[in-house]
Amino acid sequence: MSGKVNLAAKLATFDDRWKPRIVADYNDNKIVLVKVEGEFVWHSHDDTDDLFLVLDGHVTIELEGRDDVELGPGELFVVPRGVRHRPVAAEEAHVLLIEKRDTVNTGDAGGELTAEARRI
Amino acid sequence: MSGKVNLAAKLATFDDRWKPRIVADYNDNKIVLVKVEGEFVWHSHDDTDDLFLVLDGHVTIELEGRDDVELGPGELFVVPRGVRHRPVAAEEAHVLLIEKRDTVNTGDAGGELTAEARRI
Repeated sequence: MSGKVNLAAKLATFDDRWKPRIVADYNDNKIVLVKVEGEFVWHSHDDTDDLFLVLDGHVTIELEGRDDVELGPGELFVVPRGVRHRPVAAEEAHVLLIEKRDTVNTGDAGGELTAEARRI
Repeated sequence: MSGKVNLAAKLATFDDRWKPRIVADYNDNKIVLVKVEGEFVWHSHDDTDDLFLVLDGHVTIELEGRDDVELGPGELFVVPRGVRHRPVAAEEAHVLLIEKRDTVNTGDAGGELTAEARRI
């Protein structure tokens, strides 16, 4: 059984952007921390919802054909499976994500921002 | 598609203890907020892990046959399925939980603290 996870302490161990870190497991899902800044790629996940909880900073979740969702600290949003989306952050922000364990960060888009989540 | 969830705003809408509120859905799981104070009942969930993220205050997760886990704000812990546990809080604390949608808060224990999670 894993121990407790202090989110701030985990966030202090890395500084690169858009590189997810796995900090815990919940059933067949991974609990991920990521630092974001700038624009990600448009993508979707056909087999899983995508939960975003902003810990620090502000993140806009752009959604195909729908209004943007603006998230600040302590705000969460679940992108339903299959919905194309793009996270954007004007300045550095810190996000907790929950996705299925085998989810790729760039979903169906691939490309240079694709990064396997490392466990920390 | 549901909108964003501001955790503090949702917490401000209720004040009873040990009465979970559903604030979002993620795949076949519910995202729950609960205010806790005092001792819950010992119980386990045979079919799901149980994710605790403390938002405010301090919560001790007592675990059968293992050391207690002390959680403060911004700390999370996943109780693996089947592990008997009891949350305890000396003073009011606020917790975000993730459990499978059909999970009963008191697990296999039942009793007077059993409460169906209402959606807010």
